[in-house]
Amino acid sequence: MKAPKSWQDLTIAIVGGDEREQEIARLAADTGASVSAFGFPFPDEGIGGVNLASSASDALQDAHIVLFPIPGMTMDGAIFATEKIVPDRALLAHLRPGARIILGTADDGLKSAARELGIALHEYESDHELMLLRAPAIVEAAIRVLIENTRITLHGNAICVVGFGNIGSVLVRTLVAMGAHVTVAARNPVQRAMAYTMGAESMHTNDLEARARDFPIIISSVPAPLINHQVIDSLTQDTLLVDLSAPPGSIDFSYAERRGLRAIWARALGRRAPVTVGASQWFGIRKLITSALWGNDNES
Amino acid sequence: MKAPKSWQDLTIAIVGGDEREQEIARLAADTGASVSAFGFPFPDEGIGGVNLASSASDALQDAHIVLFPIPGMTMDGAIFATEKIVPDRALLAHLRPGARIILGTADDGLKSAARELGIALHEYESDHELMLLRAPAIVEAAIRVLIENTRITLHGNAICVVGFGNIGSVLVRTLVAMGAHVTVAARNPVQRAMAYTMGAESMHTNDLEARARDFPIIISSVPAPLINHQVIDSLTQDTLLVDLSAPPGSIDFSYAERRGLRAIWARALGRRAPVTVGASQWFGIRKLITSALWGNDNES
Amino acid sequence: MKAPKSWQDLTIAIVGGDEREQEIARLAADTGASVSAFGFPFPDEGIGGVNLASSASDALQDAHIVLFPIPGMTMDGAIFATEKIVPDRALLAHLRPGARIILGTADDGLKSAARELGIALHEYESDHELMLLRAPAIVEAAIRVLIENTRITLHGNAICVVGFGNIGSVLVRTLVAMGAHVTVAARNPVQRAMAYTMGAESMHTNDLEARARDFPIIISSVPAPLINHQVIDSLTQDTLLVDLSAPPGSIDFSYAERRGLRAIWARALGRRAPVTVGASQWFGIRKLITSALWGNDNES
Amino acid sequence: MKAPKSWQDLTIAIVGGDEREQEIARLAADTGASVSAFGFPFPDEGIGGVNLASSASDALQDAHIVLFPIPGMTMDGAIFATEKIVPDRALLAHLRPGARIILGTADDGLKSAARELGIALHEYESDHELMLLRAPAIVEAAIRVLIENTRITLHGNAICVVGFGNIGSVLVRTLVAMGAHVTVAARNPVQRAMAYTMGAESMHTNDLEARARDFPIIISSVPAPLINHQVIDSLTQDTLLVDLSAPPGSIDFSYAERRGLRAIWARALGRRAPVTVGASQWFGIRKLITSALWGNDNES
Repeated sequence: MKAPKSWQDLTIAIVGGDEREQEIARLAADTGASVSAFGFPFPDEGIGGVNLASSASDALQDAHIVLFPIPGMTMDGAIFATEKIVPDRALLAHLRPGARIILGTADDGLKSAARELGIALHEYESDHELMLLRAPAIVEAAIRVLIENTRITLHGNAICVVGFGNIGSVLVRTLVAMGAHVTVAARNPVQRAMAYTMGAESMHTNDLEARARDFPIIISSVPAPLINHQVIDSLTQDTLLVDLSAPPGSIDFSYAERRGLRAIWARALGRRAPVTVGASQWFGIRKLITSALWGNDNES
Repeated sequence: MKAPKSWQDLTIAIVGGDEREQEIARLAADTGASVSAFGFPFPDEGIGGVNLASSASDALQDAHIVLFPIPGMTMDGAIFATEKIVPDRALLAHLRPGARIILGTADDGLKSAARELGIALHEYESDHELMLLRAPAIVEAAIRVLIENTRITLHGNAICVVGFGNIGSVLVRTLVAMGAHVTVAARNPVQRAMAYTMGAESMHTNDLEARARDFPIIISSVPAPLINHQVIDSLTQDTLLVDLSAPPGSIDFSYAERRGLRAIWARALGRRAPVTVGASQWFGIRKLITSALWGNDNES
Repeated sequence: MKAPKSWQDLTIAIVGGDEREQEIARLAADTGASVSAFGFPFPDEGIGGVNLASSASDALQDAHIVLFPIPGMTMDGAIFATEKIVPDRALLAHLRPGARIILGTADDGLKSAARELGIALHEYESDHELMLLRAPAIVEAAIRVLIENTRITLHGNAICVVGFGNIGSVLVRTLVAMGAHVTVAARNPVQRAMAYTMGAESMHTNDLEARARDFPIIISSVPAPLINHQVIDSLTQDTLLVDLSAPPGSIDFSYAERRGLRAIWARALGRRAPVTVGASQWFGIRKLITSALWGNDNES
Repeated sequence: MKAPKSWQDLTIAIVGGDEREQEIARLAADTGASVSAFGFPFPDEGIGGVNLASSASDALQDAHIVLFPIPGMTMDGAIFATEKIVPDRALLAHLRPGARIILGTADDGLKSAARELGIALHEYESDHELMLLRAPAIVEAAIRVLIENTRITLHGNAICVVGFGNIGSVLVRTLVAMGAHVTVAARNPVQRAMAYTMGAESMHTNDLEARARDFPIIISSVPAPLINHQVIDSLTQDTLLVDLSAPPGSIDFSYAERRGLRAIWARALGRRAPVTVGASQWFGIRKLITSALWGNDNES
């Protein structure tokens, strides 16, 4: 591929996704690049400067860069899209030689197809910066789930937050600011010390079984089975359990149901605030493109 | 009526209402009083110490105190209840002579029926303390409406809050704590100065027309037509309008609809967090009973 | 006096005061008015557009408006100034006929001198808006006093704030935000409900004696003798007492000293942040001038 | 050394330090251990259960554990203490064979003396958890420095915080909560994203020169010369510069002085809130002792 010298020389395909891709496409077109789109909900009024393609292969034709959605790959190798799109060798062959794919996470099928065609893959699912930029949106979605499902206010009540990663820490800061009495359960003493600086109490995860019943609301962001039989057995009927984590999740849902407890698996929170989150994803994608094509990763 | 000397001597009827009355009934029974209930959603498992009556008149029979619900009276004189209950002279005659009615607001029919029977009425709808105790619940319900209806985060975005009364001021404090950039529109310079101390910007309500378009989210708690044709004409299509006020409301909804703007009348927010709010209402009702019967209004 | 039609026609004298008057003078000159100054600390490099007069009478000569400082009048009738200045009839006679005096509070001597000369007095000491605009500065000064005098952090420790007026309420909000566990002592149940909405606990002032010993830090803004013998007797030696109130103050200092307790009367907090506070005072003074001269009190 | 089986069998020496060691000694004695102390400010009324030794060697005699202060070692090999104490081989020989030294950081002299005597050294200066537990105290000390040295409020004004480590991040959270408009300067994009989640703006450190003049207050916690000639040249005379970092510091103080700017090196902030900080240090020290002697590092 003769390297494009500027955004104006660049052809970008955006294939699959949800409402966030609308904002990503709009911002991509704002750079001056040629942008074609397919496979995500496209507004009736169109998106300025973005060409709606008639198929995935049409969208990919001669593109330098293709963006696949952040939710990554489903079981059958298809990407998350408004119709079934499998990014196999036949489809990727429409890309320009030396093209690049930017996406959340790739599965093995996509990886081998790309390798055979000499197409570079850039995964950003574990990009710490992007996760933090999305965190306020996800936390607001979680706050909504809590408000929808409680008979008490968050203000003035005791909430246990299990886990203190990117989402957990922003959730704790927000709940404390809303007046909740927050206790963090975390294995890592440094995370517990951080929780302390934010005005939360903390405990070792091992103490969940002994202490969980003090909390009418327990919300976990740890993808490990911490809310297990023992913890669930310790709870009263009034407890609300919310799981923010990816499969296999944190809560034993079937056991919670048998015990008559309300347990909610809050999924797809990443779709909250698609304009804000689409913009932050584009911020990260733009840095990846700039760095890959023009060797300049100055993030300022 | 021979005055009851203590809670144990007291018979309380709770008639009409919603989930909040469950908590009020439970707390009323905790005092040792005899409590009978009718006309609000009653849990299958019952409420400890509370007798579910077979009719409104049955519930009122020989009661010293009757509680009607806070939403007050509907148009036809009925109270808010799971079935039609009109508190007319025939119904109130079941009460013990010298009984007292405690409720949000009474209409003329109830007032004259009570007067004829020598029954005292205590209205608490405009009780400033109770309104503040309910404020966090109402504000969380409003936060939920905002999160449900926005494509951007509250965090980091500009929100205009019109009005700075009990609800408005708690809403502002909470939105600021969640990271929103809040501007208060208020006529009263003292309220604007209060907003300043909370980290919000402020403007005179007269400036709404000129400045409203800077805000993707506008939320009003003023029961006056401030979001009128002129203000609506100044807005972009992306603006979300939310009205928290009682009828006649703050927004010209039909005009907003004609202009293609999203406008939401967020009603019944008072039902958010019925356990917390029921408890705060009981806190106020208990003070009223204590003061009326035993002349002791020590609120501690 | 032929009424000045605009700021350019106006002569303003600023006499007495502290560092705040530097900012007030600077902002007054920015309007285009002629400004002369005397009796407050004047910077060596001068203040743009402000004439440093050689005496108080020189500064007042032919002025339409004179500003005296907010600290008000001392015992002997002198204003707060770098030298003794008594605003008696002889001094005020230098003003233009029909002039106006704007100040915090006037004493009887000044009132009668002004009345005899037909000079209007505008007092703003009790202006609720101005008090709130000054509140963040005073609260930061109070925070400094607390930090200087404690062996524990404010973060994570129990602080009792006695009083919930303009200063008390902003102090509570700030301490809660800094991670303190705040309990408000107030007689008024509405103020206690406001404290609850801010994430503080509360109690009736009558409970101070019983509960004060739970707080290593007690800070009062109520100008009434609430921290009396009984309360002081209930405390441990480690308690820090801070009084923010005006004379006669809230704490029995001599008794606290006899009991070996540390008690601090935090005075002159109003001088904290003179640039910010001078600007907010000028904001209020400007509204007064505009309203008095041109009948226009649009505060926007 | 015959290993002590419990706290009651243990002899602990606390030598050198400041007011924090008073609290550490008190808490150490609370475990039931024998505690002797020397070389830090000892209160006249004594510390319950702590023996004030007559010399450093007396304090160390037969101790299993010795605590030296967190400020670590001065140039000449002496520890920070009320008199000169050099922990050389002669002094350490008083310890029980197989003893352990717990301290902030050791210099080469102490390390070799300990090695020759078979004494284990545990350094905790870089313990991330302890740094965070101290952070609120240090941040409050920094807040005090800012309040003491500004003519504007922190509330409502623009503050640039350079660096976003343990102290920087807690400082940012606190300043935002106090109503300041905070911008973080950091090289690391993940730290800038964290600042965003806390409601702060951010910039790359490289942009300091271009943007520093927008901030009346700049405070740095980075021990690298970031506030250099170029940055200082860009500032107005009104800027306040505060350096929280360890030598060599962040600000070019001599150049700032030549330019007439106010620049403050805020040192010894770790002594703020000695009771709180002493307790958190003891929390860490206790874990070290438990783990070293009894192989149990359960931190709960």
